[in-house]
Amino acid sequence: MNNWFKFLYLSLFLMLTSKANAQEKVIVGEKQVLFSKILNENREVWIHLPKTYDDTTINPAKYPVIYLLDGEINFEYYVGMTDFLARTPYADIPECIVVGIKNTERTRDLTPTKAQKKSPVNPNLTLFADSGGSENFIKFMQEELKPFINKKYRTQEYSLLVGHSFGGLFAINTFLTHPDYFNAYVANDPSLWWDNKVLISKTKDYIEKHKKFPAKKSLFVSQADNEEQQKNWNSDMTQTIEEFKGIVESNGSLNYKHRFFEGEVHGTVSYPANYEALKFIFKGFRTDIKQLAKNPELLEGEYKKLSEKTGADFVPSESYLNVVLKFMKSNEFKESETYFIHMKNRLYPKVK
Amino acid sequence: MNNWFKFLYLSLFLMLTSKANAQEKVIVGEKQVLFSKILNENREVWIHLPKTYDDTTINPAKYPVIYLLDGEINFEYYVGMTDFLARTPYADIPECIVVGIKNTERTRDLTPTKAQKKSPVNPNLTLFADSGGSENFIKFMQEELKPFINKKYRTQEYSLLVGHSFGGLFAINTFLTHPDYFNAYVANDPSLWWDNKVLISKTKDYIEKHKKFPAKKSLFVSQADNEEQQKNWNSDMTQTIEEFKGIVESNGSLNYKHRFFEGEVHGTVSYPANYEALKFIFKGFRTDIKQLAKNPELLEGEYKKLSEKTGADFVPSESYLNVVLKFMKSNEFKESETYFIHMKNRLYPKVK
Repeated sequence: MNNWFKFLYLSLFLMLTSKANAQEKVIVGEKQVLFSKILNENREVWIHLPKTYDDTTINPAKYPVIYLLDGEINFEYYVGMTDFLARTPYADIPECIVVGIKNTERTRDLTPTKAQKKSPVNPNLTLFADSGGSENFIKFMQEELKPFINKKYRTQEYSLLVGHSFGGLFAINTFLTHPDYFNAYVANDPSLWWDNKVLISKTKDYIEKHKKFPAKKSLFVSQADNEEQQKNWNSDMTQTIEEFKGIVESNGSLNYKHRFFEGEVHGTVSYPANYEALKFIFKGFRTDIKQLAKNPELLEGEYKKLSEKTGADFVPSESYLNVVLKFMKSNEFKESETYFIHMKNRLYPKVK
Repeated sequence: MNNWFKFLYLSLFLMLTSKANAQEKVIVGEKQVLFSKILNENREVWIHLPKTYDDTTINPAKYPVIYLLDGEINFEYYVGMTDFLARTPYADIPECIVVGIKNTERTRDLTPTKAQKKSPVNPNLTLFADSGGSENFIKFMQEELKPFINKKYRTQEYSLLVGHSFGGLFAINTFLTHPDYFNAYVANDPSLWWDNKVLISKTKDYIEKHKKFPAKKSLFVSQADNEEQQKNWNSDMTQTIEEFKGIVESNGSLNYKHRFFEGEVHGTVSYPANYEALKFIFKGFRTDIKQLAKNPELLEGEYKKLSEKTGADFVPSESYLNVVLKFMKSNEFKESETYFIHMKNRLYPKVK
């Protein structure tokens, strides 16, 4: 064996073993880094693509995008949650791309104003000195991150912003300042106490100026069972979230849900809340495949209602239509099968 | 550059780029294959190791093991769930190793008797011809899979079995037939209608023979909101689960919880049910780190209670003690800090 042959042979071997190792992992996302001119730093994002993204048996589909704050601590469970909720035939939500944003300077990026607070635990410590950068951070998301994602992946024009604590504060502030940036907002146990309840004032100002909240936007706010925490640590977290609830509910126009989670504290509420939030935002998405056997018109009817409610364009996905067709075929619902074959040909004419 | 030098240089380059690519993925598990003599086939399992498993700053720890049926469809969300629930300082459960078992012949492996059923959708079709192999499958788990996992990973002597539908049937059958195989059992919307409710008879037989269920075992049964399904498809799923509930609850000795999930159907109930099941099984595990500042004895007291309830040995993990110590130090709770330094030295004397 000459040296070059050895080289090729061994290189190939190395490549193949690396490949084999890679295939033995359960992978739920890929990490990307982009340089932000606005923030003057590199930002790492974790991207999850839904199960059908690379399915070559269907036409390339587009997917809504969920922008998830505190990516490094939420990404892994969140993408399992979206995939579960989007699983046919019981899907409660469409398949989504999830973009988890990893923190660099969390307090700087997520707080709307410069403010400080003495530690409730130890008054000698001053917290949050580096705050007030949220306008810059949302500018990064809107002008740099979103174009990056939209260029690199097949995205539908429907997006969510999801945050917890300071991230919830950020989500509500974005909703008040730039309501058009996202279609739906999720704020889990948001830190509305921030800077003498500055967002409560901002909410009142919004209503005074615009009279009504935008009707086709959704906002889900979760509230943890913080009584114990409040008692011991003197936080006005709970009271401020309830004040916000009162203002928004009396306005009425927003697709808004507030939910209190008994037994869940500030650090645990995000998990069940994110599940409920997704089901709330896409309420009306789930159709019963068995009902479609008798009443095939139902499918597009339900999607039409959802599209009207959200102001976005939701149609049955090709992969779901394939599941429906398989069900109709194997159970010999011939009329419905024909109906859905026509629907599929109409919605996805470029059959591969 | 001579050829050998080129070879080494380029091989190294290939290895490094492969490594770099691997690092850019978000990985939640690894796949392993073992040959089962009992089943006479290869079985693939997906293994998730908890966050601290490879943490070199602590002593090598042991972890409870969760055996998860229908691994290929449950693994990804389930491991996100266990990691979330085990996150300090709000941990509701200990960090766990999760072993997802991929199906080969699902009906064969998960059903306790040979039985057939006409399709409720299309009576021309006969379902489940290949059934009745569960005794063989549990033998594989007990005699081949568990030793494989225990040899390969650092496991604590505490294990759970989690299943849905036929997997729930399998979990309850295992509990009745081999209650000592696992410490806790989770059966989500179990198919107790199987073979003319054969497990209802078996449950009655168990009580007649043993009088009481084993006291230190836990069983969580979830029930979906299947009314619509039952109405249209004539399944006796719901009625049989309720019959089982009646028998077990009137016996009283088992650490048992039954929960009905409104709005969740057979195909969606597992997700919220698995979350509630884990919180139920490890109830008492969560301690409030702020309370520990004033009352440090609480920690071992709570773990002792949990150990007594479960018959297993739970002690505060080294990684949690590090979190507690950091909290006490940064908030200047000096007495508590000293207390937990002593506890850590006592429980984990081999400081690296």
